[in-house]
Amino acid sequence: MNYQKIIDETYVDILSSGNPGKVATYIPELGGVNPDQFGVHLITVNNENYSAGDSETPFSIQSIAKVFSLAMAYKHLGAKLWDRVDVEPSGNPFNSLVQLEHDEGIPRNPMINAGAIVICDILTTLLDEPKRDFLEFVRQLSGNNSINYDRNVAESEDATGFRNAALANFIRSFGNIKNDIDVVLDFYFHLCSLSMTCRELAETFVFLANNGRTLFGDRRVLTPSETKRINAIMLTCGFYDEAGEFTYRVGLPGKSGVGGGIAAVQPLSYSIAIWSPSLNAHGNSVRGFEFLERFTTRTGESIF
Amino acid sequence: MNYQKIIDETYVDILSSGNPGKVATYIPELGGVNPDQFGVHLITVNNENYSAGDSETPFSIQSIAKVFSLAMAYKHLGAKLWDRVDVEPSGNPFNSLVQLEHDEGIPRNPMINAGAIVICDILTTLLDEPKRDFLEFVRQLSGNNSINYDRNVAESEDATGFRNAALANFIRSFGNIKNDIDVVLDFYFHLCSLSMTCRELAETFVFLANNGRTLFGDRRVLTPSETKRINAIMLTCGFYDEAGEFTYRVGLPGKSGVGGGIAAVQPLSYSIAIWSPSLNAHGNSVRGFEFLERFTTRTGESIF
Amino acid sequence: MNYQKIIDETYVDILSSGNPGKVATYIPELGGVNPDQFGVHLITVNNENYSAGDSETPFSIQSIAKVFSLAMAYKHLGAKLWDRVDVEPSGNPFNSLVQLEHDEGIPRNPMINAGAIVICDILTTLLDEPKRDFLEFVRQLSGNNSINYDRNVAESEDATGFRNAALANFIRSFGNIKNDIDVVLDFYFHLCSLSMTCRELAETFVFLANNGRTLFGDRRVLTPSETKRINAIMLTCGFYDEAGEFTYRVGLPGKSGVGGGIAAVQPLSYSIAIWSPSLNAHGNSVRGFEFLERFTTRTGESIF
Amino acid sequence: MNYQKIIDETYVDILSSGNPGKVATYIPELGGVNPDQFGVHLITVNNENYSAGDSETPFSIQSIAKVFSLAMAYKHLGAKLWDRVDVEPSGNPFNSLVQLEHDEGIPRNPMINAGAIVICDILTTLLDEPKRDFLEFVRQLSGNNSINYDRNVAESEDATGFRNAALANFIRSFGNIKNDIDVVLDFYFHLCSLSMTCRELAETFVFLANNGRTLFGDRRVLTPSETKRINAIMLTCGFYDEAGEFTYRVGLPGKSGVGGGIAAVQPLSYSIAIWSPSLNAHGNSVRGFEFLERFTTRTGESIF
Repeated sequence: MNYQKIIDETYVDILSSGNPGKVATYIPELGGVNPDQFGVHLITVNNENYSAGDSETPFSIQSIAKVFSLAMAYKHLGAKLWDRVDVEPSGNPFNSLVQLEHDEGIPRNPMINAGAIVICDILTTLLDEPKRDFLEFVRQLSGNNSINYDRNVAESEDATGFRNAALANFIRSFGNIKNDIDVVLDFYFHLCSLSMTCRELAETFVFLANNGRTLFGDRRVLTPSETKRINAIMLTCGFYDEAGEFTYRVGLPGKSGVGGGIAAVQPLSYSIAIWSPSLNAHGNSVRGFEFLERFTTRTGESIF
Repeated sequence: MNYQKIIDETYVDILSSGNPGKVATYIPELGGVNPDQFGVHLITVNNENYSAGDSETPFSIQSIAKVFSLAMAYKHLGAKLWDRVDVEPSGNPFNSLVQLEHDEGIPRNPMINAGAIVICDILTTLLDEPKRDFLEFVRQLSGNNSINYDRNVAESEDATGFRNAALANFIRSFGNIKNDIDVVLDFYFHLCSLSMTCRELAETFVFLANNGRTLFGDRRVLTPSETKRINAIMLTCGFYDEAGEFTYRVGLPGKSGVGGGIAAVQPLSYSIAIWSPSLNAHGNSVRGFEFLERFTTRTGESIF
Repeated sequence: MNYQKIIDETYVDILSSGNPGKVATYIPELGGVNPDQFGVHLITVNNENYSAGDSETPFSIQSIAKVFSLAMAYKHLGAKLWDRVDVEPSGNPFNSLVQLEHDEGIPRNPMINAGAIVICDILTTLLDEPKRDFLEFVRQLSGNNSINYDRNVAESEDATGFRNAALANFIRSFGNIKNDIDVVLDFYFHLCSLSMTCRELAETFVFLANNGRTLFGDRRVLTPSETKRINAIMLTCGFYDEAGEFTYRVGLPGKSGVGGGIAAVQPLSYSIAIWSPSLNAHGNSVRGFEFLERFTTRTGESIF
Repeated sequence: MNYQKIIDETYVDILSSGNPGKVATYIPELGGVNPDQFGVHLITVNNENYSAGDSETPFSIQSIAKVFSLAMAYKHLGAKLWDRVDVEPSGNPFNSLVQLEHDEGIPRNPMINAGAIVICDILTTLLDEPKRDFLEFVRQLSGNNSINYDRNVAESEDATGFRNAALANFIRSFGNIKNDIDVVLDFYFHLCSLSMTCRELAETFVFLANNGRTLFGDRRVLTPSETKRINAIMLTCGFYDEAGEFTYRVGLPGKSGVGGGIAAVQPLSYSIAIWSPSLNAHGNSVRGFEFLERFTTRTGESIF
């Protein structure tokens, strides 16, 4: 497959289609980003690399980091993890709190905020220094020691911050958070502030296409079976209220973030990261989503 | 009307009916209370007093204090208050959070926790020293300087505490709390910890039967029209999910607390306080509710 | 009290305040009504009558009829009625279906559609010919044999009709409707189609101000205690999502309909009916609500 | 891959694991089924066949038929179909009605009852004789003219019937059902009553593993791209509130029914049907789910 050619053609197509949508504005650090930036990087499990556009510009990966915290907690706890968080899609976001009440404090999945906060609580219990140890884990996935948190992003206080504090206190009232809420939320806000380029994100993600082994240092992170399960969770839960639409139109396991990034994998073949900051009404990158739909149509590859 | 005779007869009736229900156990300070205590005090607008049973034993008035904080905020702000909190009954408690979302952070009424927390936020903005000034206000209502907070109750941390923190953060995310959440909640927990006897509670409440004037010192707290409106809110919203049932069976404006207290008024006539710690499934005093139903049936008085 | 003078002054005030709001348009029979019509009629328990404006023009009383069906079912069944329908306010209409699910098919109160449909089912079981017998009951309340259904209104099929069919089938799935759904709904649609003038409506309502006795023929419909309880239900549940607001601002038990009518009672004193078709966002008559607030302020009378 | 060996070993494993769960009892036709029946049939895209147990006993496929009605409607309308029904997972069933209200009558996906009823409405508009034409379509998929509705099942009236009537009326109130509700529901109840053996079900399903072509008569039903999309919808929405769990543990697109059947596909490889009537709390076959998890673990095949 000539990935570079297909990436280039698709990239040009998308560039010429306009750029509707809006940059996330709930924290100033995201609101000031130039919406017309657009980068792509694909890395195969054989370490072949293909890219286009602003693939070397760092951006805030936001919720995409939830995949890494999930992988780290799953590596430590295995299936016991599912006592604390479920693996079901969550339906409309408007009912997230009522659903938490119905489910007695067990979040629907680790990709929504409530679930990711519980994962942070679990890691806070397991790790000596959660922020340091988690960053180390991410650096080992990518073989890249320059990856870091963006402290300005982590420290932004806003409505979303209060919503997350509401979620954490609500979950705590059911006993499903064990550590100090401020510590857990500080970890969570740091996790979401990770900054990467498209290339770095694709490199960090590629272990999920590679049966759970990193390309860099060849470490086993997860077993092949565990890797499939993480991919399954991304497929059903990775795109907020558009998980079905993404699966329907793209057909790859992936995860998006409100910074405009999307990372996805074709199992046993490649990982791909796209970044374009303008978001649709569901909080997913307009160009990222569109790129992946056209790209998978052109390659004829999907998991289905 | 021979109130003493009717109180005595009703008291004996209720005593002989058994005492089903359960004491609130969510904080140790309430869980350890003897469930068989039972007191009544009625005070008329002419300062005639009638009582029965444990009417001189102090108890935790809990949510009944929300009436006093509402009165204080209403006295300061008048109808502007309703920009921050509504006056509608709230329906089932299970949907309180989803309703807050639907109503964009405006609580349904000042008698539910969400509304009382917003009132605390308003008073935090208005008062120099909220806890001190509010206590002074309550003491002036009753002409009784010995009324005080119970610090053990105020400091109890529990699941309910986390739920209230969840509510406060959620409301804050809509911008309807202006002050530091910890300060507002500390005030709220103190307010709910007020300790009074039945006599003291009836004395503090009687201004609502007296067109808004205290009996003690004859101070005007609210205008007659404002007083009617507070009474109207108690009638539609004073008994959690049993407000309709209480109105239907008793027919007086009133407010209950999970400490087992109920205070009610017959406008222009009297206020009455009952205390018995065993609660029904809706969190209202079993004997208090029953006493008031039989008492108003015997007197033939209700507002309808 | 010079009711005529106060009515006249209030009427003129309201006329000069503009007439915002919108006529209900969901069935053509209501949508075609002239929005500027405005009538008032007050009748005391001594049969003194006062009126203003279009008090002799017939209009569709719609949901106000739910009070009459409730009274009829309560007269037959007494407190057993509450096994089938509750007496609690319902909160926001948006959650009516989810609340029915939570409450296993028991509607929150007899003033919302779900509850009124259950009342119709109960009457269908109790009565030989429900539509005929219910009309007879209403005619006896008012001493007026010319009151009738408006068949055009009853037969209008629309979105509201499908919603009511959805409610009825949902309740039926919990076993809380016993008769054929089409029969029950046909009865319900007829009930809502009752046509009356303000004078006729006030005359029909006045038994609720008169301890449960009609003025015309002096029949006992309900005991004084039962009458108080119906009034209590109107107070907490009579104005959809504005029951608290109406109680707060007007302070009388009453019921509104989307035809623009409002009927209310001052117990032991009078009933009053106002009609003006323009509705506010909650489906209550703009001028009717405003008239009653100013009227009760001027008379200084309310139940509080 | 030696499918027969793996099927046999897995079958024996499951047989020895006990058979918890309960047969669906909401209609007598399902409640009377022997819970210990257990059949499996796998058919490859090369028409190789493997089976075990009661693979030739007919059972009620129930909701699995929703895949066939979706395929038929999609074949006729293409992407226009998505104006009437969405492709997102639905979250907890308890909020299905409130979600329909939020989404203004557009069901979340075609696999839940609300969505399948809208598909039936669409087919009612498109087809001359919906019940006859749909049956013909299913017979062509399988090359088997003996497949038929079970009229006893179709005619069972029960609580579920009233719930479906509630859904249909509710959707109709938003204008998203165009035909007579009784006609649409009659079609829907027939569709759910289809009776097949495991072999027949696997044969009918195999076009979804075969790029959209039937094995029998080699007809093109859907394009390869359309086929992938149907599979994507099954993956995210095929197992009620356990879609995430099934994807996580099995990793194949599939659909279950309350009759105890499950059908699934490994794209480009095979379709498999399992039947065992005992259901778990989510309404999915206990043994069917367990069989597929162990089977895919043994084969090492999944789409991830």
